[in-house]
Amino acid sequence: MLYDILRSIGQLYDEPMAEAKKRLDSLLKPTGSLGVLEEIICRIAGIRGEVYPSIDKKTVIIMCSDNGVVEEGVTSCPKEVTTCLTSSLFRGLATVNAFTRHAGADITVVDIGLDSDLDCEGLICRKIRKGTCNIAKGPAMTRDEAIRAIETGIGIVKDLKNKGYNMLGTGEVGIGNTTTSSAVSSVLTGSPAEEMVGRGAGLSDEGLMKKIETVKKAIEINKPNPDDPIDVLSKLGGFDIAGLTGCFIGAAAYRIPILIDGFISSCAALLAVRMEPKVRAYVFSSHGSAEPGSRRVMKELGLEPMLSLGMRVGEGTGTALAFNLIDAAFEAYTKMGTYADASIEKYMTSSN
Amino acid sequence: MLYDILRSIGQLYDEPMAEAKKRLDSLLKPTGSLGVLEEIICRIAGIRGEVYPSIDKKTVIIMCSDNGVVEEGVTSCPKEVTTCLTSSLFRGLATVNAFTRHAGADITVVDIGLDSDLDCEGLICRKIRKGTCNIAKGPAMTRDEAIRAIETGIGIVKDLKNKGYNMLGTGEVGIGNTTTSSAVSSVLTGSPAEEMVGRGAGLSDEGLMKKIETVKKAIEINKPNPDDPIDVLSKLGGFDIAGLTGCFIGAAAYRIPILIDGFISSCAALLAVRMEPKVRAYVFSSHGSAEPGSRRVMKELGLEPMLSLGMRVGEGTGTALAFNLIDAAFEAYTKMGTYADASIEKYMTSSN
Repeated sequence: MLYDILRSIGQLYDEPMAEAKKRLDSLLKPTGSLGVLEEIICRIAGIRGEVYPSIDKKTVIIMCSDNGVVEEGVTSCPKEVTTCLTSSLFRGLATVNAFTRHAGADITVVDIGLDSDLDCEGLICRKIRKGTCNIAKGPAMTRDEAIRAIETGIGIVKDLKNKGYNMLGTGEVGIGNTTTSSAVSSVLTGSPAEEMVGRGAGLSDEGLMKKIETVKKAIEINKPNPDDPIDVLSKLGGFDIAGLTGCFIGAAAYRIPILIDGFISSCAALLAVRMEPKVRAYVFSSHGSAEPGSRRVMKELGLEPMLSLGMRVGEGTGTALAFNLIDAAFEAYTKMGTYADASIEKYMTSSN
Repeated sequence: MLYDILRSIGQLYDEPMAEAKKRLDSLLKPTGSLGVLEEIICRIAGIRGEVYPSIDKKTVIIMCSDNGVVEEGVTSCPKEVTTCLTSSLFRGLATVNAFTRHAGADITVVDIGLDSDLDCEGLICRKIRKGTCNIAKGPAMTRDEAIRAIETGIGIVKDLKNKGYNMLGTGEVGIGNTTTSSAVSSVLTGSPAEEMVGRGAGLSDEGLMKKIETVKKAIEINKPNPDDPIDVLSKLGGFDIAGLTGCFIGAAAYRIPILIDGFISSCAALLAVRMEPKVRAYVFSSHGSAEPGSRRVMKELGLEPMLSLGMRVGEGTGTALAFNLIDAAFEAYTKMGTYADASIEKYMTSSN
């Protein structure tokens, strides 16, 4: 199924993109002066195949799972926090609850590998297994499990498409997942672990050293093939990263714009793009993660973050904030006046 | 009046700031993980003297005026566009109309020096004079005019305070005002004109060279005293910059948070801070302007932009987008769950 889906991914539609550009250029503002918001509008038109696509039904997909590597002591909170935080999403307690409420968006919470039997109304149970194995000792998961987790993400997006969602954010809850993301991105970008590992949600100096050593060890022991994204993912990743990789692939296949949140989802986006470069055109940035590896991965994806807030919450919080910006851009795109409306001759290259 | 107002500006209130910090630290997220949004929340609490200030009534103040320097050919659209754009604000045609509508904010449009007799319902007429003089030939305005324009901005903020506004954005419409801003900021920061002058809304290479020469000439002829902000403003600025300078001073005096938009309003903020350093604590960033001088001025103010979109519209558009971010931050601050609510022991320095 995965390979069929990858083959089905098409290019953006040229005509609605060109029409969107024409509309933008007719608006009462200097040409191109909405910056990246203009590129975003054009790409969304190209994805959806409509000059004026509606973007009124949004959700943040939050992949929740546990990571075996936590037993190495690379985090300063116990892995039980993964389940606690996941359950708090259903009680409206988390940051992403507040941000999505403010943005008028929903959340879609998936148990793709929690090491618990959490049962919450609305939680989508797609558990591959109860947590991954410790990457410092061997592969996180089998190749088959990785493919199933990716296909799970694709399936979630298909279901959301059928429910009428037309814009997606990505997020995760998973103690230990900046460690797995550092390992995956170190191999994919050919960057040393030292440059990719950060303090996560607030690690000490000592913790940071241990995390770097753990990532190095994981890469050394597993010897992933950098040219085989599924090999890298299955050996060094997590079910959350694998599920999100599937979300990016699914969004491209089902033609829905999808936003990267922080470091973890950027790694998933990069894995998806390595599997099929056409995915790139469907992916949008949101905020710049405080994790050092994030900048490197975003550069590899050719994306610049729109928001620079120094946030390190995860959960898809950056995507919920970026929804607001895209909504504002569409408000301008669809409802602003043109030069003709204002009876001004167009000042193509004006300077004020 | 100006000097009385400047003397009346106080410090932020410590207690509500400390209480806000305590509340933020109790929330279900890693300590400090909302990044600059946490600093913004604390500062707003300190400005307003309340732990949970309401920020439900916002407006973008748009100072509109003409600049005599346009006759030097430093812009590629005629100065009539200033009046056309100002009138388009009342027909809901401009970008800032769309962005403020999306943010649930109002606009407050002030004619502080249009070279026309524009008459629109809602336009606040506070014309100092019909446009400034050409700074390449002499001072833009008299010292007395500069003070009156600053006092006009202060008065506008006082009126808005009385109407219940509790958050302000700043914007401007004024062909030629990146030229005046470049001149003002070049003197205030001691940076060469080459580093402060940009393409405005889209100037050619030739136009850019002419603009740099004009700024140099303006500084040479007027010999402003860099240690006297009113001297710099009156010789090289514009009525829009002067009015906005007054808005920043007024916001500090009447204790209302105020956001910088792009290059022009950042110069006004810097002038206000040079007149009274306490103003700084009341000022917030929004987006990073594409103008090269903007980065230098923001650095001087010790502010980092929250949004990185490559926009160059002006009109206060960046502040309207930033309103959304601050609203989302307050939604989290006031409605998120605490560690106690989630029954998790606090993971002070956790890493996920």
